[in-house]
Amino acid sequence: MFFASDNAGPAHPSIMDALTTANQGYAMGYGADPLMDEVRTQIRDLFAAPEAAVYLIINGTAANSVLLGTMSQPWQTIFCSDVAHIHEDECNAPEFYTGAKLTLVPSADGKMDPADLRTKILAEENRGVHGPQRGPLSLTQVTEKGTLYTLDEMKALTDVAQAFGMQTHLDGARFANALVALDCSPAELTWKAGIDAVSFGGTKNGALGVEACVIFDPALAWEFELRRKRGGHLLSKHRYLSAQMQAYLADGLWLTLARSANDRCAQLARGLRGHNAVEILFPPQANIIFFQMARREHKRMLDGGAVYYVMNGDPATGDPDAPLIGRLVTDWSMTAEGVSQFLDLLHGSPG
Amino acid sequence: MFFASDNAGPAHPSIMDALTTANQGYAMGYGADPLMDEVRTQIRDLFAAPEAAVYLIINGTAANSVLLGTMSQPWQTIFCSDVAHIHEDECNAPEFYTGAKLTLVPSADGKMDPADLRTKILAEENRGVHGPQRGPLSLTQVTEKGTLYTLDEMKALTDVAQAFGMQTHLDGARFANALVALDCSPAELTWKAGIDAVSFGGTKNGALGVEACVIFDPALAWEFELRRKRGGHLLSKHRYLSAQMQAYLADGLWLTLARSANDRCAQLARGLRGHNAVEILFPPQANIIFFQMARREHKRMLDGGAVYYVMNGDPATGDPDAPLIGRLVTDWSMTAEGVSQFLDLLHGSPG
Amino acid sequence: MFFASDNAGPAHPSIMDALTTANQGYAMGYGADPLMDEVRTQIRDLFAAPEAAVYLIINGTAANSVLLGTMSQPWQTIFCSDVAHIHEDECNAPEFYTGAKLTLVPSADGKMDPADLRTKILAEENRGVHGPQRGPLSLTQVTEKGTLYTLDEMKALTDVAQAFGMQTHLDGARFANALVALDCSPAELTWKAGIDAVSFGGTKNGALGVEACVIFDPALAWEFELRRKRGGHLLSKHRYLSAQMQAYLADGLWLTLARSANDRCAQLARGLRGHNAVEILFPPQANIIFFQMARREHKRMLDGGAVYYVMNGDPATGDPDAPLIGRLVTDWSMTAEGVSQFLDLLHGSPG
Amino acid sequence: MFFASDNAGPAHPSIMDALTTANQGYAMGYGADPLMDEVRTQIRDLFAAPEAAVYLIINGTAANSVLLGTMSQPWQTIFCSDVAHIHEDECNAPEFYTGAKLTLVPSADGKMDPADLRTKILAEENRGVHGPQRGPLSLTQVTEKGTLYTLDEMKALTDVAQAFGMQTHLDGARFANALVALDCSPAELTWKAGIDAVSFGGTKNGALGVEACVIFDPALAWEFELRRKRGGHLLSKHRYLSAQMQAYLADGLWLTLARSANDRCAQLARGLRGHNAVEILFPPQANIIFFQMARREHKRMLDGGAVYYVMNGDPATGDPDAPLIGRLVTDWSMTAEGVSQFLDLLHGSPG
Repeated sequence: MFFASDNAGPAHPSIMDALTTANQGYAMGYGADPLMDEVRTQIRDLFAAPEAAVYLIINGTAANSVLLGTMSQPWQTIFCSDVAHIHEDECNAPEFYTGAKLTLVPSADGKMDPADLRTKILAEENRGVHGPQRGPLSLTQVTEKGTLYTLDEMKALTDVAQAFGMQTHLDGARFANALVALDCSPAELTWKAGIDAVSFGGTKNGALGVEACVIFDPALAWEFELRRKRGGHLLSKHRYLSAQMQAYLADGLWLTLARSANDRCAQLARGLRGHNAVEILFPPQANIIFFQMARREHKRMLDGGAVYYVMNGDPATGDPDAPLIGRLVTDWSMTAEGVSQFLDLLHGSPG
Repeated sequence: MFFASDNAGPAHPSIMDALTTANQGYAMGYGADPLMDEVRTQIRDLFAAPEAAVYLIINGTAANSVLLGTMSQPWQTIFCSDVAHIHEDECNAPEFYTGAKLTLVPSADGKMDPADLRTKILAEENRGVHGPQRGPLSLTQVTEKGTLYTLDEMKALTDVAQAFGMQTHLDGARFANALVALDCSPAELTWKAGIDAVSFGGTKNGALGVEACVIFDPALAWEFELRRKRGGHLLSKHRYLSAQMQAYLADGLWLTLARSANDRCAQLARGLRGHNAVEILFPPQANIIFFQMARREHKRMLDGGAVYYVMNGDPATGDPDAPLIGRLVTDWSMTAEGVSQFLDLLHGSPG
Repeated sequence: MFFASDNAGPAHPSIMDALTTANQGYAMGYGADPLMDEVRTQIRDLFAAPEAAVYLIINGTAANSVLLGTMSQPWQTIFCSDVAHIHEDECNAPEFYTGAKLTLVPSADGKMDPADLRTKILAEENRGVHGPQRGPLSLTQVTEKGTLYTLDEMKALTDVAQAFGMQTHLDGARFANALVALDCSPAELTWKAGIDAVSFGGTKNGALGVEACVIFDPALAWEFELRRKRGGHLLSKHRYLSAQMQAYLADGLWLTLARSANDRCAQLARGLRGHNAVEILFPPQANIIFFQMARREHKRMLDGGAVYYVMNGDPATGDPDAPLIGRLVTDWSMTAEGVSQFLDLLHGSPG
Repeated sequence: MFFASDNAGPAHPSIMDALTTANQGYAMGYGADPLMDEVRTQIRDLFAAPEAAVYLIINGTAANSVLLGTMSQPWQTIFCSDVAHIHEDECNAPEFYTGAKLTLVPSADGKMDPADLRTKILAEENRGVHGPQRGPLSLTQVTEKGTLYTLDEMKALTDVAQAFGMQTHLDGARFANALVALDCSPAELTWKAGIDAVSFGGTKNGALGVEACVIFDPALAWEFELRRKRGGHLLSKHRYLSAQMQAYLADGLWLTLARSANDRCAQLARGLRGHNAVEILFPPQANIIFFQMARREHKRMLDGGAVYYVMNGDPATGDPDAPLIGRLVTDWSMTAEGVSQFLDLLHGSPG
């Protein structure tokens, strides 16, 4: 009953095995290992992007920051949703790597609206040298609220950006979960939807720690390499990143894992919907659910062994009837039995 | 015959096993895993520093940069040798994380002299607000030239720094190799020698990728944590860093591995000294040798299957008699047979 | 009829004369000129702050940025109104000098509400190392909308900040205009209202270009000096800054000039209120008025020789009935006749 | 007898008058004043560079830093002499504005040698992504030691830079002094000698505070404007910068002033050479002299009312026979009588 985060579960055994396999003899460091050549080919094939620049990096904050650094100038502002991970959860890393600021676009459910985006862009563009200049747009898919942009919705946003000459970045920490939910191809979820560069996550979906940075315009490749090194993110024993990503992609493992996580989330959602004291806050379209119920119910669940974050108050102290918001995140390693156990505990309550 | 770098060899099987062992069930992320508590205790015990702040980070450039960021101000200059890794091999990462500049102290053999350090400090201190202010001193042990400071030599340098109110940092990417060569304790090699914070390397000595940052003044701990996060260096699935370091330190594995690497280096040195066309450039005191011989000899070795860097010219093209400098680095995984093979190839030459 | 900005008018003759007087013989540079000693005393006396650190700087963006740099850490966020000059009109200079980000507090009329501030602070404080940390609060007085915080309103905001351990900065580009409107002392408008440091403007009120940075905690003085120098804002021929500020403060010139500017603004406001097609948007409490009228009326005024900014559209093109917002700013150099000329032109219209 | 610096003398009366003349009525701010149009034309004509981007900035540190920021990337290193003002006297401002580091080229007399420059460039270019990349070359003319590069010497250095694809910057804080000494045209001293951008000083030669930044490739203009604003160096009441520069250039005033300063320096040099206890250290080719004599002699001069910096020791305390280095700087405002007074005082000594 551990639903705190998809970075708290174990790595998939195939990925562990790949590390062991890779751990033979000598391999040139810093990305010159032969496995990286294989990964580059895998990703270019997956994305139908034979020219794409492909790099590996250890975590999502770094992947987003180095990519945005490569796409931005320090006198610009980056447009993102007001709940974007790059805004809320990276302790100014994007600002550190870019020098730019962030302009927050409202997003009730984690999703920006093209009209709001356009309004914000226009509000930033009328002060000449005095105001920040327009930098890239950054989307997140799956959003931080567990919702998804449809491909058309993505395209509507990137169309706005492109009309202003802006580049577009996709924070794909949960790219796999989005892809299987939307039932589309990596190309459709990125460059065909107007995305110029993507942080392609592995860590939250079964890896120990690896993200791919995929840049569709190879002209930015060398700058990315320099920025990665300058940020201390070029690993010497790079083969252990390569091995993770190679195994993650082999035989569609990444899709299998994401489908399982999403299935567990759907199972949770069905169970929550069947409980009349629970309100689901946003449509749970991938592997995250935000739900509201009384503090006493949260306390009962946590006391009963469930583990998840309560977002807006202490579940142990305060008005027992006050509604509080919980967040449940599923990952590849959860079983249907584990979810049932959680739901049984929930429904066992007097409501 | 692979002597290119100690980051090109495999990780030790015990460390691989530790990853597998750690890969069970759920673990809180971001350093809140129980293994990290164990590592913290291990390192505090090793360093006889019960209050020390201890953090793990993925590689040496990041460890140095986040530590120096925590110890510096952007209007200062950091004193280091003119061949320091932080100067030559980190693509401005120290400048990025600190905002400071580096003042280079001459070092014929990788080692600074206290008088030179003092001269450089005095040269930087006489311009009031106009010039940079004095920041920390950064030493490297094992130095980039494969030499070692004695404990007295370290103390003489840190005494100079402390006389000017400066803090001191130790780049210990090869800390284990230095320790076994100097036959001293971690405390003697750090705070007893006047060091305030150390990058304690694991990557080059059998880990996949992990360094400990040890700060003897715990007042700097929170700032370090914020700077680590802002640099994108706080890992979500932190248990895989903890597991590496835990196993690295358990049962003195780290010392065993370093001794083996140093022994192979000593074996190499003996063999090189027995060759009248080879000149060893600096006393090889740990696991690195710089040596000079004619281009034709380098070419013959490389053609014969030896792998190492020639530092100052293309071994394949140019005057065959011209002397060129080669660098040999040994690691834990090398066998006496492998070294003998290299030496046999060398001595098989007409000289 | 030139109401575009209070940085477009001439400098006061007394300040010009002071430059000429200062231009005699030699004077040590970089703030060591004797006039600066006089200015320091003037300002400490004015603010009843005998220990305050006092520095001069050439313009308001620099004054704000160097002060905020001295008060912030790069992992923090600075709280300011969503129309603050530091957010909208400084092209990321505050971010450049601080490394921090800005959190925008809503402000319909340029003024933040303590409850909104508190909400924003709480929203930023619950993510530990993952989110930005709380940095200083920055207020603007006169606000960018021409409104004023009462002293009680200021205190209510700084009380919120102080309850969270935050420092407070005042952007006083129009400090004089605020002071005379509020009829209070400099101490009441700053440290007695909970302000820790103030950008005390001269440029917009009759100087050529000079702002004082006043820091009530002298412990920050040396860091400010280093940050000023590092930003390229320490002037060699500093006497010309000192002379401006000395003359600006002598004999209450600064108050006289601000009163005159405010009087002209009040005259404008009376005239605008007497016109039934004009809507004044915020209470014009100092020397700025925002007003709304039909595009055709703006066009008529501008064609008739009035000069001011229309904020939200092209006055020359579009629906002639559409309401557009104009901004009028008065300065010391305007005459009652000039204002009357503007109002006559306005009222001459059929409405 | 005030020879401490050329930033300690008064501004020329014509430049003061120009300020007064400019102080009439309203003028658009931020460089949109009509005087700036005139200055732009003056400078383009002077430099025979009709396309050049021309901007004004308040001081030399800012001019150098914003220009170098525009010409550099944060993963690069800027090549300059080891006594360059950008290295020694700007408190890391160049590093702040560029993110880059500085590589110091030896310079016994303030002048770099092309072979040394080439050696340093080659030393920085062989580490791929690991080391800093090659950034611009920055020359200073007049050098910090009072010497001059001939035009051929400049060309030899910029040829080296251009062979490596590097841009070139000229710190021309004393551009006028160099120009009249070399008896060449501004074009010959800049783009014809391979310079891409120049900090063209006014402050040290009779202005209150103004430098022109001249960029021969107009493609960099907009980036310069954004960097200037982001650094807080775009002045609102810009007309007072324009007026200074306009008057400085009008009727060759700048050349007249520089000739006078250089003449006084030559007079000083003649007098110093006639004293057998004085050693002139570098050929004084413009308006700066470094000379060595016994501490007792320095003390006698300073006690007698001469004002100048003793660079390497306290003139009042220590071995009276020890040789110390003094620096004399002349400016436009010095008279032949003042210099004679200094020399009389010197020669009045028993020697």
